[in-house]
Amino acid sequence: MITASSEIRVRYAETDAMGIAYHGNYLAWFEVARVALLDKLGLPYKALDDAGFLLPVLEVGIRYIASARFDDKLTITASMSEQPRVRIHIDYTIHLGDQLITTGHTLHAFMNRTGQAIKPPLFVQQRFAAAFAK
Amino acid sequence: MITASSEIRVRYAETDAMGIAYHGNYLAWFEVARVALLDKLGLPYKALDDAGFLLPVLEVGIRYIASARFDDKLTITASMSEQPRVRIHIDYTIHLGDQLITTGHTLHAFMNRTGQAIKPPLFVQQRFAAAFAK
Amino acid sequence: MITASSEIRVRYAETDAMGIAYHGNYLAWFEVARVALLDKLGLPYKALDDAGFLLPVLEVGIRYIASARFDDKLTITASMSEQPRVRIHIDYTIHLGDQLITTGHTLHAFMNRTGQAIKPPLFVQQRFAAAFAK
Amino acid sequence: MITASSEIRVRYAETDAMGIAYHGNYLAWFEVARVALLDKLGLPYKALDDAGFLLPVLEVGIRYIASARFDDKLTITASMSEQPRVRIHIDYTIHLGDQLITTGHTLHAFMNRTGQAIKPPLFVQQRFAAAFAK
Repeated sequence: MITASSEIRVRYAETDAMGIAYHGNYLAWFEVARVALLDKLGLPYKALDDAGFLLPVLEVGIRYIASARFDDKLTITASMSEQPRVRIHIDYTIHLGDQLITTGHTLHAFMNRTGQAIKPPLFVQQRFAAAFAK
Repeated sequence: MITASSEIRVRYAETDAMGIAYHGNYLAWFEVARVALLDKLGLPYKALDDAGFLLPVLEVGIRYIASARFDDKLTITASMSEQPRVRIHIDYTIHLGDQLITTGHTLHAFMNRTGQAIKPPLFVQQRFAAAFAK
Repeated sequence: MITASSEIRVRYAETDAMGIAYHGNYLAWFEVARVALLDKLGLPYKALDDAGFLLPVLEVGIRYIASARFDDKLTITASMSEQPRVRIHIDYTIHLGDQLITTGHTLHAFMNRTGQAIKPPLFVQQRFAAAFAK
Repeated sequence: MITASSEIRVRYAETDAMGIAYHGNYLAWFEVARVALLDKLGLPYKALDDAGFLLPVLEVGIRYIASARFDDKLTITASMSEQPRVRIHIDYTIHLGDQLITTGHTLHAFMNRTGQAIKPPLFVQQRFAAAFAK
């Protein structure tokens, strides 16, 4: 399993009139950890994007266990439990200190700039293989 | 089944560097249709909120079938297929013209202003019962 | 003066923990009215964008006179008081019913896809001239 | 002059279809640095908020000098050049490495939970006085 974590601090911009973080913003937080995970794999998303390989989201699921509030320091963890073939499945947890407040997942495909679904390019497959061979 | 639809026009603010609507923004669009659904039930969310009854989100799921782009006119439909008891399950579709581009769901609980889960207040239960009796 | 107005309904996603609309979201509302203004000029932003002409923002100013809240129906008005030459200056007001709650402006340049500042293309200049000749 | 800086990394969620960070998101970045500035003054915004003292925004201005892109590491600096009396004026810069890409300001009032403008509470005035006495 490949795992990476990021710390974020909840912005006032991310709260809503319930006084908690708006549920839609968690997907941007998942993204923060996913970017860190790709960095760790030696596949920075910026470089993929610049090379014309996009990773659109096909599916998301989120379970909200407890709320997050303004200024909370959260730990977002992204993990891949299996070596991706065509699609990439990533699982997430969000912790506030020791408390698990959210779980979720995203599913991604590889796409080129013209919007066509493609297989992961060879250098990406090799990185995945190397990471899961450890 | 109780159903309500809303039209939205994708804002530039909602797009991302892939040139499509950012996947996290769909939850705000679901909210637009959910608010319309509660209006239709005679339970405007604004009035619930003012009365101290909150509807936090417990769970979401989204399947992205096709992309949405800047200025697309989308139809967001929210529906309840069963009369809610303690939790409220709402299903969503997003169409671009005739094309189904997204499906999803959200699950909600009732909560009071102090953050405690509560049963739906009686007037809400009566509205639900009346709507599903038709 | 060329003017266009749009109605928006404040989303829960746009509120913050003060119980009011987050001040950063007003720029997306200005955009909604700006898009309507360009539509009215026969220069839909979508078409400009597709043709490779971008309108990045150089400057913004906003004065918040009164708050907006969840579910408020707001009227956003964008206006050009002078025919644009190189830069486009747009003024905005936001009303809640009869009450003026916000004023603001944005300043834009024309840019091509490679990020270079350019003069407005001829067909755009002609549209501006025609609109201000009336 | 009291100054504080924060680092942020541009999220994909914050980009738009021009391939750059959406101009509306800069106000959330200013907020990140403003929160750091208040921390430095010993007046964490979280504590003010919990104590019922809000700092709504009265006015903003932003000049966009150069674009920010996905994954850019930006330094957001907030500074107060004068000891605040009734209103708080804060200036901002955003740098990408050595390059200044944005300047701006925000103006704030103190407000209580019922929405009334108030003078800064005494403990806040004392903190400001102490900070500017150095």
